[in-house]
Amino acid sequence: MPQRYFIDPIDFEIKTISGNDAHHISKVMRMHINDEIIVCSNQECYRCHITDITKDVLFEIDEKLVKKEAFHATLIQGLPKGSKIDTVVKYATIFGVSNIIFVEMNRSISKEKNTDNKLKRLESIAKEAAELAHRFDVPKIEFIKRLKDINYQPFSYVLVADENEKTTHLNHVINHQNIKEHIAIIIGPEGGITDEERNFFKDQKAHFISLGDNILPTEIASLYALSYLSIKNIE
Amino acid sequence: MPQRYFIDPIDFEIKTISGNDAHHISKVMRMHINDEIIVCSNQECYRCHITDITKDVLFEIDEKLVKKEAFHATLIQGLPKGSKIDTVVKYATIFGVSNIIFVEMNRSISKEKNTDNKLKRLESIAKEAAELAHRFDVPKIEFIKRLKDINYQPFSYVLVADENEKTTHLNHVINHQNIKEHIAIIIGPEGGITDEERNFFKDQKAHFISLGDNILPTEIASLYALSYLSIKNIE
Repeated sequence: MPQRYFIDPIDFEIKTISGNDAHHISKVMRMHINDEIIVCSNQECYRCHITDITKDVLFEIDEKLVKKEAFHATLIQGLPKGSKIDTVVKYATIFGVSNIIFVEMNRSISKEKNTDNKLKRLESIAKEAAELAHRFDVPKIEFIKRLKDINYQPFSYVLVADENEKTTHLNHVINHQNIKEHIAIIIGPEGGITDEERNFFKDQKAHFISLGDNILPTEIASLYALSYLSIKNIE
Repeated sequence: MPQRYFIDPIDFEIKTISGNDAHHISKVMRMHINDEIIVCSNQECYRCHITDITKDVLFEIDEKLVKKEAFHATLIQGLPKGSKIDTVVKYATIFGVSNIIFVEMNRSISKEKNTDNKLKRLESIAKEAAELAHRFDVPKIEFIKRLKDINYQPFSYVLVADENEKTTHLNHVINHQNIKEHIAIIIGPEGGITDEERNFFKDQKAHFISLGDNILPTEIASLYALSYLSIKNIE
């Protein structure tokens, strides 16, 4: 598979790759005119070939790639400690998450500060992971201060991963009928969710689910749910 | 949940925790007599309380924990680069793998050397991850030099994750009827598997499967399959 690049719609309009991606093509990959690349923009990807390499890279489209219909899942992730936030973004992107919202929850030890700088770094991790995974889009990442500041209206289903829940599993809530709906997956920080948060989620008509018999660390817990959605989406 | 410790059957016989675990109890967790711990040995776990703390820790059993029947999956992992081997062990253990075999495959850049030292480190990562995940056992880890040195007889199903496979998915091979069988999951190294290896696996009557539309990096690809097996095992 040729290398994949996500570019702005405005650059796609003029068939031009600039900045870091242009540098990557010319200096890191040392590509030449006529070499093949995949260019993605606005949730579509195209097989292209390079027509010119200077500071910028120009390309022409050969073929639009057929997009498989993905599931639509937003991860609402209780802010984890330190570099685990990078792990969340990288792996959840690879496993097909649509959007990620980081939110300070009661047991979050980290606080939301310098979010502008963090967001920049996380967006670049997400872009790289999306290229690696051959996705058609890059997930949108947001920091939201409090659970109650999140708009839950867009979600048809709000799933809360809860260690206390032993009997309700993903497949009891999400099945063939509703797999195409917009699903929110809520994962608590280290230490899990509090009763106060449980009550808040109940008011949002959330479904409390178990992620299996093993206790999953916060930074990879979403992968369990995303794997299920991916397989159910194919079935 | 109290802290969990995996100990040798011979130590369990005399209800004694020694070495690093005893140090962890007395110095790191600063526990006292009568504090509760979970002690696991020989694939069983028990709620216990501490009866004495000196250099060793003595305990008495209060209750045997009820074990849920897990699935039985061996991960055959093409040797990955550098520290990714640690990621494989940590995360696959958390997601419930039974055994891990590292094998040099055609596209493995790392070679199998100093495996005794590596094995020691990996076993300690697996033990810690099993404690974290509240497992009843610690997966067995092995290094085997070549694919053809592996004994495939114990496996009822050999599944090969193959980027070239687009139509056969996990659920086409593993379902309610055969989820309790011993399943082998083969994940290639970075760069995937070669045609020579494909032919070898065909001779082993392996099933070639897709792990979804996204390309998963070698160190976390098994999590997709293990999540599916966990959910199917509950269903």
